[in-house]
Amino acid sequence: MESRQNSRMTRTLQELAGICGAELQGDPGCEITGVAALDQAQPGDIGFVNDRKYRSFLDTTRAGAVILTPDLAAAYPGNKLVIDDPYLAYARVVEALFPPAPAQAFVHPSAVIGEGAVIGEAVYLDAHSVVGDGCRLADRVRLGPGSVLGPDCEIGESSVIGSNVSIGGRTRIGRHCLIHAGVVIGADGFGFAVQKDGRWHKITQVGRVVIGDRVEIGANSCVDRAAIGTTRLDDGVKLDNLIQIGHNTHLGEDTIVAAHTAIAGSTRIGRRCRIGGAVAIAGHLEIADDVAITGNSMVTHSLRQPGVYSSGIAVDDNRNWRRNSARFRKLDELFRRVIRIEKRIGP
Amino acid sequence: MESRQNSRMTRTLQELAGICGAELQGDPGCEITGVAALDQAQPGDIGFVNDRKYRSFLDTTRAGAVILTPDLAAAYPGNKLVIDDPYLAYARVVEALFPPAPAQAFVHPSAVIGEGAVIGEAVYLDAHSVVGDGCRLADRVRLGPGSVLGPDCEIGESSVIGSNVSIGGRTRIGRHCLIHAGVVIGADGFGFAVQKDGRWHKITQVGRVVIGDRVEIGANSCVDRAAIGTTRLDDGVKLDNLIQIGHNTHLGEDTIVAAHTAIAGSTRIGRRCRIGGAVAIAGHLEIADDVAITGNSMVTHSLRQPGVYSSGIAVDDNRNWRRNSARFRKLDELFRRVIRIEKRIGP
Amino acid sequence: MESRQNSRMTRTLQELAGICGAELQGDPGCEITGVAALDQAQPGDIGFVNDRKYRSFLDTTRAGAVILTPDLAAAYPGNKLVIDDPYLAYARVVEALFPPAPAQAFVHPSAVIGEGAVIGEAVYLDAHSVVGDGCRLADRVRLGPGSVLGPDCEIGESSVIGSNVSIGGRTRIGRHCLIHAGVVIGADGFGFAVQKDGRWHKITQVGRVVIGDRVEIGANSCVDRAAIGTTRLDDGVKLDNLIQIGHNTHLGEDTIVAAHTAIAGSTRIGRRCRIGGAVAIAGHLEIADDVAITGNSMVTHSLRQPGVYSSGIAVDDNRNWRRNSARFRKLDELFRRVIRIEKRIGP
Repeated sequence: MESRQNSRMTRTLQELAGICGAELQGDPGCEITGVAALDQAQPGDIGFVNDRKYRSFLDTTRAGAVILTPDLAAAYPGNKLVIDDPYLAYARVVEALFPPAPAQAFVHPSAVIGEGAVIGEAVYLDAHSVVGDGCRLADRVRLGPGSVLGPDCEIGESSVIGSNVSIGGRTRIGRHCLIHAGVVIGADGFGFAVQKDGRWHKITQVGRVVIGDRVEIGANSCVDRAAIGTTRLDDGVKLDNLIQIGHNTHLGEDTIVAAHTAIAGSTRIGRRCRIGGAVAIAGHLEIADDVAITGNSMVTHSLRQPGVYSSGIAVDDNRNWRRNSARFRKLDELFRRVIRIEKRIGP
Repeated sequence: MESRQNSRMTRTLQELAGICGAELQGDPGCEITGVAALDQAQPGDIGFVNDRKYRSFLDTTRAGAVILTPDLAAAYPGNKLVIDDPYLAYARVVEALFPPAPAQAFVHPSAVIGEGAVIGEAVYLDAHSVVGDGCRLADRVRLGPGSVLGPDCEIGESSVIGSNVSIGGRTRIGRHCLIHAGVVIGADGFGFAVQKDGRWHKITQVGRVVIGDRVEIGANSCVDRAAIGTTRLDDGVKLDNLIQIGHNTHLGEDTIVAAHTAIAGSTRIGRRCRIGGAVAIAGHLEIADDVAITGNSMVTHSLRQPGVYSSGIAVDDNRNWRRNSARFRKLDELFRRVIRIEKRIGP
Repeated sequence: MESRQNSRMTRTLQELAGICGAELQGDPGCEITGVAALDQAQPGDIGFVNDRKYRSFLDTTRAGAVILTPDLAAAYPGNKLVIDDPYLAYARVVEALFPPAPAQAFVHPSAVIGEGAVIGEAVYLDAHSVVGDGCRLADRVRLGPGSVLGPDCEIGESSVIGSNVSIGGRTRIGRHCLIHAGVVIGADGFGFAVQKDGRWHKITQVGRVVIGDRVEIGANSCVDRAAIGTTRLDDGVKLDNLIQIGHNTHLGEDTIVAAHTAIAGSTRIGRRCRIGGAVAIAGHLEIADDVAITGNSMVTHSLRQPGVYSSGIAVDDNRNWRRNSARFRKLDELFRRVIRIEKRIGP
């Protein structure tokens, strides 16, 4: 039994400069074996400074090298990689130091493979995984322990599915996706018609989920199958943990959503949107491209223009909050009183 | 290995009219093989119009038939099923076109069945499923891959449990229930007493969960066992995904709850309530029958009268929101200032 | 196949008085076999009254004995255990009546154990569980059906892991922890750098999760691994269900968090904090020791002083809410109007 784990490589500072496109200042042969926050770094580690407010760490860090912006370079005498976007450079450096383990063909004896399933090269099926009838798994797909693919799913090359993931029948997932543990894709959407006797009549859900390339879905998130047609996450969508995507919803390319956000059914979200955590978005809305929604917002109407949108009121001392929130219930009345005063005292 | 999947049947328009009780206008022999949204329908598909605002789709649809209300019937020359409630009719039609696969007896070799378990007829136990000691599974129960029943559970006839579901010991689930992937039923309620040293002392949870007939529970939702006694979901309750039901909570018949809602412990919710998504309901409350709570509401007191209840403020442009929410923290002061003005200028 | 279940013991009232340190009044030999709410108790049950408002149940209860405070003792003629904190006493009594089943060594034939794993005494590995290469499981650890430990995890003595739990590589869990079904520990944190072409570049997450002793994590909660370094839950932390803990976040000793709360990355929360349900806490904040945050609050700034903090507005009748929330969007304008009036009418 082996489970996916990144391996760990040693790189010279010169190699890392090439990988991330930074200017090297210092010892090109300095060997880097890991990454660390500046205040915890050892001489084999590389760190980064992305924000001037952390510049004081440069005075005391023991890091072997630091990635930083040109304006901070003079403040640090040690080995450094100088570049305009240290965070993106760090992304490339850490990837080079901790590359994914190479793909290998492996089928654990306890894995179950359905009839007619087509399994590509270097596919890894871990313990107690289940591949439904008629599934097609492209090269280098990885299915974690206890994960289940319903019948006729299609998983694109190099996509990795974590542990105990449940994927419903006919789901299509693109290439280079990463689906974390506990995710549920393709469960029934939530649709009921009310009967005359007040009981709910289930709407049989017959659609499916289609996911593009380079999509990441965080742990225990849910993406429901469509009632009719398709629930869709386009290329490059990134979802954090415990997110709900309702049936027939569509997220455009490179849209990113933080944890605990719920997006109800039939909502259409544009490209490159940035949606904070714990946001609630109602169903049947249209959200334009390039919309940002700050955390904990409530979205009950369409947002047709790019821009930043917010709602919610931050915590206050409990005593103040009690007073203010009680007053909120009389806010309309207060407006009326002010209007009366204005009329009374004239223009 | 086979997994639950609806089958697909061809029906004539006349058959479908009989199934949903609609008036047929057009070709009774028209063969329908699928359902689709009007703008994507092919000649073998049936669609529906539930809202006058979508009536323009009637001009261009290629659907083989449409379900619609009497007032729209004249606007559509094609084959149609005319009925007052097209959505409920659609529910019956799609069910007839995509009936559940017939139950069959099957026990995957990797399924584990505990001592003393009683298994009914046509029960399906999928790969890596686990049936605890002393469980009783009625006829036509289906347990998905990787799902686990603790000891002494009782599952009523024709209930279907998805993949990777975890159900704690002594849980009772009624007939015709549908429990989606990743659901956890019967984990410990969250109860701790504080000790003198400030540490938390766990309250051993000894109760259980009892679920009625025709209950649906969405993916990755959680229903905790009672501290003492029973956490209860009555007949016809419908829960969406990622919902939390605390210990000793009780939901009345035909109450429906949308995704990401949290209901804390010992709250009692009436019958036929409609609770939106991302709602937070505190513990030890009473919610009357026929209460509707709109999405994202915060419920911290009992609601003893039927009606519609709401809270939350919808997103605004970030700049406006900053100004208004800063002012909120001075709302009580504003009331006092207005009162002072009123006193000053007299009646 | 056997699954964890508490056993059930008979205790005399005298034994229970000793266990919880209460004064016994009544029959010391009275045999107690269970616990129940006072209105449902049978003669073999013991109940408790923690709040004077439930004192009327004392008049009619059939319980064999009641745990109550000295000031209520005179109101109840039956067998009683008298103590200042009946809830904590109840915690000890129910634990004595329903002790956990004794640990036993068991490895289900379907369990998978990786190379180099070290398994202590009386470890229980249930059906379809997976122990990764190099894991170290201390004595009396219990791993539920379908649960997965990635490589090189370390689980301390007597810790119990429920069903279908997924734990990523190199996670360390202390002693006497309880991890409920569906939990995901050690999935990737949510970190991306934006590229020039607008696409997101994943930040390879190389950190891990370290969890102290006596920690409880509720069903389907998620604790992400650190980007670099460690995500940390200190001794005695209690998390309810469906909670999100972001990467590099740190919760101090004995902090307790109710269901559906999301805590974003790199936030540091102190000791003995009490955080309600459905709270959203932004990333990179500092929350002091002994902070209480009431349910459904939004926390977007650090809270550096102990105390109680709140936000959110409770539900109102839908008609009132519509009026007030519409006015909120003009709140800043209202302040300006009041200021104008004040200037106009003078001091």
